[in-house]
Amino acid sequence: MSVNSFGHVLRVTTWGESHGPAIGAVIDGCPPGLALGEGDIQLWLDKRRPGLSRHTSPRAEPDRVRILSGTYEGRTTGTSISLMIDNVDARSADYEDMPPRPGHADAAYQAKYGVRDPRGGGRASARETAARVAAGAVARLVVPEVAIEARPIEIGGSTDDWEALLDEAREAGSSLGAVVECVARGVPAGWGAPVYAKLDAELAAALMSINAVKGVEIGAGFDAARARGEDNADPALAGGITGGIATGEPIVLRAAFKPTSSVPALGVKGRHDPCVALRGAPVVEAMVALVLADHKLLHRAQCGQGRGE
Amino acid sequence: MSVNSFGHVLRVTTWGESHGPAIGAVIDGCPPGLALGEGDIQLWLDKRRPGLSRHTSPRAEPDRVRILSGTYEGRTTGTSISLMIDNVDARSADYEDMPPRPGHADAAYQAKYGVRDPRGGGRASARETAARVAAGAVARLVVPEVAIEARPIEIGGSTDDWEALLDEAREAGSSLGAVVECVARGVPAGWGAPVYAKLDAELAAALMSINAVKGVEIGAGFDAARARGEDNADPALAGGITGGIATGEPIVLRAAFKPTSSVPALGVKGRHDPCVALRGAPVVEAMVALVLADHKLLHRAQCGQGRGE
Amino acid sequence: MSVNSFGHVLRVTTWGESHGPAIGAVIDGCPPGLALGEGDIQLWLDKRRPGLSRHTSPRAEPDRVRILSGTYEGRTTGTSISLMIDNVDARSADYEDMPPRPGHADAAYQAKYGVRDPRGGGRASARETAARVAAGAVARLVVPEVAIEARPIEIGGSTDDWEALLDEAREAGSSLGAVVECVARGVPAGWGAPVYAKLDAELAAALMSINAVKGVEIGAGFDAARARGEDNADPALAGGITGGIATGEPIVLRAAFKPTSSVPALGVKGRHDPCVALRGAPVVEAMVALVLADHKLLHRAQCGQGRGE
Amino acid sequence: MSVNSFGHVLRVTTWGESHGPAIGAVIDGCPPGLALGEGDIQLWLDKRRPGLSRHTSPRAEPDRVRILSGTYEGRTTGTSISLMIDNVDARSADYEDMPPRPGHADAAYQAKYGVRDPRGGGRASARETAARVAAGAVARLVVPEVAIEARPIEIGGSTDDWEALLDEAREAGSSLGAVVECVARGVPAGWGAPVYAKLDAELAAALMSINAVKGVEIGAGFDAARARGEDNADPALAGGITGGIATGEPIVLRAAFKPTSSVPALGVKGRHDPCVALRGAPVVEAMVALVLADHKLLHRAQCGQGRGE
Repeated sequence: MSVNSFGHVLRVTTWGESHGPAIGAVIDGCPPGLALGEGDIQLWLDKRRPGLSRHTSPRAEPDRVRILSGTYEGRTTGTSISLMIDNVDARSADYEDMPPRPGHADAAYQAKYGVRDPRGGGRASARETAARVAAGAVARLVVPEVAIEARPIEIGGSTDDWEALLDEAREAGSSLGAVVECVARGVPAGWGAPVYAKLDAELAAALMSINAVKGVEIGAGFDAARARGEDNADPALAGGITGGIATGEPIVLRAAFKPTSSVPALGVKGRHDPCVALRGAPVVEAMVALVLADHKLLHRAQCGQGRGE
Repeated sequence: MSVNSFGHVLRVTTWGESHGPAIGAVIDGCPPGLALGEGDIQLWLDKRRPGLSRHTSPRAEPDRVRILSGTYEGRTTGTSISLMIDNVDARSADYEDMPPRPGHADAAYQAKYGVRDPRGGGRASARETAARVAAGAVARLVVPEVAIEARPIEIGGSTDDWEALLDEAREAGSSLGAVVECVARGVPAGWGAPVYAKLDAELAAALMSINAVKGVEIGAGFDAARARGEDNADPALAGGITGGIATGEPIVLRAAFKPTSSVPALGVKGRHDPCVALRGAPVVEAMVALVLADHKLLHRAQCGQGRGE
Repeated sequence: MSVNSFGHVLRVTTWGESHGPAIGAVIDGCPPGLALGEGDIQLWLDKRRPGLSRHTSPRAEPDRVRILSGTYEGRTTGTSISLMIDNVDARSADYEDMPPRPGHADAAYQAKYGVRDPRGGGRASARETAARVAAGAVARLVVPEVAIEARPIEIGGSTDDWEALLDEAREAGSSLGAVVECVARGVPAGWGAPVYAKLDAELAAALMSINAVKGVEIGAGFDAARARGEDNADPALAGGITGGIATGEPIVLRAAFKPTSSVPALGVKGRHDPCVALRGAPVVEAMVALVLADHKLLHRAQCGQGRGE
Repeated sequence: MSVNSFGHVLRVTTWGESHGPAIGAVIDGCPPGLALGEGDIQLWLDKRRPGLSRHTSPRAEPDRVRILSGTYEGRTTGTSISLMIDNVDARSADYEDMPPRPGHADAAYQAKYGVRDPRGGGRASARETAARVAAGAVARLVVPEVAIEARPIEIGGSTDDWEALLDEAREAGSSLGAVVECVARGVPAGWGAPVYAKLDAELAAALMSINAVKGVEIGAGFDAARARGEDNADPALAGGITGGIATGEPIVLRAAFKPTSSVPALGVKGRHDPCVALRGAPVVEAMVALVLADHKLLHRAQCGQGRGE
């Protein structure tokens, strides 16, 4: 099973390094006949795009997506959909000959492969998440019945006054962590699977696979460890999933983002966000859309269209 | 991709219901030539076994494992290893005609499949985890260089005085949640993979797939959301994994277990633990062993034996 | 991806050696609500069973299948179905300390694993095909709209007078090859997939994975290599599949079975068939049923129930 | 499991339509540190390229490959390798509004998806095989110990005088089928796997997945059906694989290509080859390289570097 791919029947493969010519995603198994144009994807990429506020990295990528295959006259044909985004503003000179950075993936890549692309994090760069957002935009079309919304609920340990905290961190050359919460409404009871492909297990993997995420919760999460048996009657504890299968209630997830490790305070050159989680929310939404779309199709494979739909 | 299976190259498939004749696991891709007898597996099953203390369910399963294939004269042959554990003490009469229980998987299974085995949770029962522990015992033999240890670090919201809390909960017909921490020492730098099959993403899925787990953390976990960029120099924040790849430091994970939902306080018959996490620690260890063994083999597939070993 | 498994969404994993305690199959992804009892499987195992005529091996296996999981009150529940067949008449003494046999898998297993189960071919024995027939019986229930029939069309190079040829071969301590043809009627246009998971590619793999099969054809097969472009208008050339997708016409396949290699003429002890293809026809049917059932589910995953059904 | 992907640990995903902007392949799991430049791939694409002789289609594609990711300073980095080939000479006007052609995949695609790209066969076009050849060029670097050679051994039913036959067919507006034989030398004993991922089963699928292939043979192939048991001592019968595992002898495969179905004799516009198998040989080699490279890595995952190498 490939390590740069994701999903059972709706399967995404991504490729590309931060400072290579482009990044991209190939989506296999998408239902045919869905209306899909580049604008449907651009919409979501624009939400993730850096350079939109003073709180995000000034890297000025236009992030224009092109659809290279899998559609004809504005509709998906059922064949593999290839999406490509050129890397335009890749100032790799900033990164050449840079030693592995503390807390960064550089050293781990070097240990694994004995070779690495040192420019801007290479494959480990957060730039890879643009491909996820693009693929997630396609996944959303597969699950029009579901509304997915993610937003930070805590930045730098605080639930408010974020502007001041971010300004302070940026000026100090530091960065802040955050907690992003995602709610998916409209998921029919029945999507999901028991045992290893549990819906919550796959959502957890999807979120934990995002750069900088160090923790994932479903429903009450770690607070559930402080609950008592009689609290189980409260559906908020379950967060919309029991036994790995959706209950029909809203699915509630939270992901903990650590702060960016490359901070000027450590003498690191390059361009970085004071809070990566600000751009993490669209990535969380994309990953949740991909998992749900995959499980919608997996469910109808096994149980047909009559159930859970 | 099958939903009752798990792993890339060392792949486990489990089967069995709580009150069927037996449960089992099939392990595919195990290296040949490993010394493996039933005693090597029984050892770990006995640690998980219910009925060993007054704090665990009195169901009196002997949990004797049999190896039905894949070994010859006490060594693995490289072919699929079939493990079976008979269900001996399955008092299904306690459960017949029982309506779906609050917070339980019963209703979700019914919504998904339109039919379910109502006896003791069927496939959703924690009994399924015995198959994981058995498979995990085989996985341990694949990674003898790694020491894996899991233990509760918090029960009922408290870090001590657990005996009294558990006695109180059992007498009140209630149950308690817990946090289990797992440390894996000896994992060489380089195991793991980028992007979707990140070592932390797959460990998160493995733990979240355990019954009753509602949250998973790596390293600093949710506390990382309260850290600042300069804290990234502290390896404890990473928890032994950066960019999805092991750093060579100990890997530190935590899982939040909710309390058992079937409590006498809710008028539920059947036999249940006042704290499912007590038996959850061996299951956490087994799942971590399975993920690490799989990634050891996956790493040597791609990078050969010279690296990361 | 596991090597003892097979299928995308309806996935079968088999285990067991010729002379171990049992063999079995685990079926994952089966639709719920199908009527399934042991008799539905036994029916097909009995067709494959040795010892039924003087032309098949006298090994007297009763081949009684047991369903250990995945059904409740005679219906599939959607969870993994575990099937087990005890090995009763395993006279391993005939095989102990036997050197690798010419043309047999023994030497290849030894080269791969450095260890092997020498009793009766171990995992490479044709006994493994009983697990395929059992799994195929479940697959048939998933595709009730399809009629699958396989039969020898050529034995020992001849299209008739087979009784005399078989008697001669058995008396001479020799064995004969055969061609088995399989026709699947009722497959709706649309099942299948482009490129790598083409329906014909997966059928070819399924048949080539059967012991002793050395060639596979679809439609006109090797005769197509002697056709001219204008013959393509003849649907018999395509054999029911174009571009990897079913056309709605009957699917026609042929598999070439080599003769059993273990023949008394070579001084080999043990019990063997003068023509393994006689028992191969039910195995061919089972493999075709498994591929078609998997593609039915895969098709409805991607395209929904409205198309191709 | 995705249907546009192929392989266990070295996994290829392809995308692209005949008349879209480009086609491509993403290769996941490639070992790091291999010297790889565009020239290493171009070499093989040039062998497959149309327009090189009067016997192949006059479509004038330059087929220039670009490497978009996965290498740094001329070496593979272990991350996903993205290859892209622009479609330059795509005269789609020839194909617009064309009804489904006899023997072609058009009608099957329409039945499956309810929509299709009608230009030049879309995804079903033989143009997709350029992506296979590109990916195969990378696979060759993974198995430098293996020499793979494919060539037609029969065209139009004849083993010689092919020039005259091809001229006659082209002038008559017809096309010819062919048999292509492929020999892989240097495959170590031990590569392969038992049961479903048998080396011969996966090679059969790989070849049968090539457009126009209707039959596949290993070793003696269909002639094995006419052999007797005592012939099994002849290693030529096995063709280098027993029990699904390489024996160390040369692996011998044959694929039967049907003639191109789009022939001017049927009033079909567009540009086509009088014998698709002439360009099929490089595709056969590429697919064999991909399967062997995947099995090399899969073997060392399970058995380590000591065995079979």
